[in-house]
Amino acid sequence: MKAITLAEFGGPEQMRVDNVDAPVAGPGQVLIKVEATSVNRPDVIQRQGNYPPPPGDSDILGLEVAGTVAEVGEPFESAGVAPGVGDRVAALVGGGGYAEYVVAHAGHCFPLPESVSFHQGACLCETYITAYLNVIELGNLADGERVLLHGGGGGVNTSAIQIVSALRPQAEMLVTASSGKVERVAELGAHKVIDYKTQDFAEEIKVHTDKRGVNVILDHIGGPYLEKNLKSLAVGGRLVVIGIMGGPKSDINLALLMVKRQQILGSVLRSRPVAEKSAIIDRFTTQVMPYVANGSITPIISEVLPLEQAADAHRLMESSQHFGKIVLSVS
Amino acid sequence: MKAITLAEFGGPEQMRVDNVDAPVAGPGQVLIKVEATSVNRPDVIQRQGNYPPPPGDSDILGLEVAGTVAEVGEPFESAGVAPGVGDRVAALVGGGGYAEYVVAHAGHCFPLPESVSFHQGACLCETYITAYLNVIELGNLADGERVLLHGGGGGVNTSAIQIVSALRPQAEMLVTASSGKVERVAELGAHKVIDYKTQDFAEEIKVHTDKRGVNVILDHIGGPYLEKNLKSLAVGGRLVVIGIMGGPKSDINLALLMVKRQQILGSVLRSRPVAEKSAIIDRFTTQVMPYVANGSITPIISEVLPLEQAADAHRLMESSQHFGKIVLSVS
Repeated sequence: MKAITLAEFGGPEQMRVDNVDAPVAGPGQVLIKVEATSVNRPDVIQRQGNYPPPPGDSDILGLEVAGTVAEVGEPFESAGVAPGVGDRVAALVGGGGYAEYVVAHAGHCFPLPESVSFHQGACLCETYITAYLNVIELGNLADGERVLLHGGGGGVNTSAIQIVSALRPQAEMLVTASSGKVERVAELGAHKVIDYKTQDFAEEIKVHTDKRGVNVILDHIGGPYLEKNLKSLAVGGRLVVIGIMGGPKSDINLALLMVKRQQILGSVLRSRPVAEKSAIIDRFTTQVMPYVANGSITPIISEVLPLEQAADAHRLMESSQHFGKIVLSVS
Repeated sequence: MKAITLAEFGGPEQMRVDNVDAPVAGPGQVLIKVEATSVNRPDVIQRQGNYPPPPGDSDILGLEVAGTVAEVGEPFESAGVAPGVGDRVAALVGGGGYAEYVVAHAGHCFPLPESVSFHQGACLCETYITAYLNVIELGNLADGERVLLHGGGGGVNTSAIQIVSALRPQAEMLVTASSGKVERVAELGAHKVIDYKTQDFAEEIKVHTDKRGVNVILDHIGGPYLEKNLKSLAVGGRLVVIGIMGGPKSDINLALLMVKRQQILGSVLRSRPVAEKSAIIDRFTTQVMPYVANGSITPIISEVLPLEQAADAHRLMESSQHFGKIVLSVS
């Protein structure tokens, strides 16, 4: 089958269109004929050699796909409704999405509603599940609370804005974005957008919330934001750390954390055990997918490129000029 | 009434037996004739001038009492079973325990079973509720998991060992203690006791758990322990910080926190809103008090001194020579 492989770890120029053996579905797995996959920030980090796939997963890039089930592995058991051959599905995979075929655990697939295209379906797993898991479940955002979302036009963030709008309609969303994306983030549903390049977000939040702070923060910057994040967090607030794009290290003052009863919650999706991911996807399917099916939530697609142009897709991701998801179409 | 007041903030020598006006129960409050109170570490910090009582609470030391209800305030409404005049009760108070009378919110009192003495009753609130709230509720210790409790013979720790033994009988308890207290902590129910003065607790835990770590840590040391605590914490583990006796500041590596999906949870009891404390005490009464009533949980009392010797009680607390609680008897 056709797949994108790496000559070696490094820049986008290391990505090449290759011919490799198609994978084989094992027990409890399905083989999916991929119609589309999408680019996520971790793909870039993996390409650079800094984010190896979990043991047992493909070392081909790509964390999510949409397509049709081509085969089911034997013996085949699934706790939920098992996908059957020919079904249109979206799937979260530990790797291998940039290819014509990929293997997925049956519990990591869910049916793609007829109203949702394969291009859209390829954007439903990684970022929406990440946003749902970390803002709604782990961050435990209650309706009427305030949430701060960093990273304006990125995939996780645009997904989080839509999920909060649908599931917590009374929550107030404060979002940081770069200057060029402020308007589009506001159109998407953010109630206050802070230009992080020209404004001090902690100061803006202090003024906007009358010093009360926000209840939940979804952060992928890490060390350089920790102090300002905790300063921006209300009494009893939850800071969910899902990335360290700015670096891992920081100072911390535990006295303030304690007195304000704040929580710092580290979270990743990819390395969780298979059964745990299945359970998360079950809850996601029940709670979020109805909004996707009825059109309340529609993935924001910045660009669609053919799989063969995966390197260009990575260049675009790294330029941060995109707004929403970059899709790779597999013909 | 007789009460212990402070000439000024400072050492135990600033504590004096004084005559002050008895407090008056306001709406939703009761006046308790105090039979016994007990000394907690925050009393020492408050005496030193570093832990002011929450607004509206007495500035007399003392966070918990046992006694009888002398009066109820008007209008009097209580969500649960309201305490009546003459009832034997234990109560969590924001301050004022070192006195013949204290005012408590009705929802912060609970009935003292006949089998429990006033001396024991004076030990049931601050440390047991702290241990319950932070290990069982916030730390969410599941049966069969491992918990690390710091601080061997202290009040919170001895309470935590008893609560875990009763409510999570399959949990494994690892406890740090100073050399002189290792045996008594083991007798109380700890499965492994680490002498923190002669052993590196993180190294001991690594070996003992075969590198898997513990699921919950209850910590009152703060900054100096943070790195070792996180190192000792399992994937998905929860570090509950309830004190900063070693200092507030530390470095932190958010990459490890994220990849291991660890949580740092700041927690205090005293400054929580009145209604929140009432709700916690309701759950504590339902879940823990049956074990106290049937004798499975019995407060460990190190020493009973008359209220007039409160200064000596503080000297003993500061020497860390005690094991369990120091009670002040009010005649």
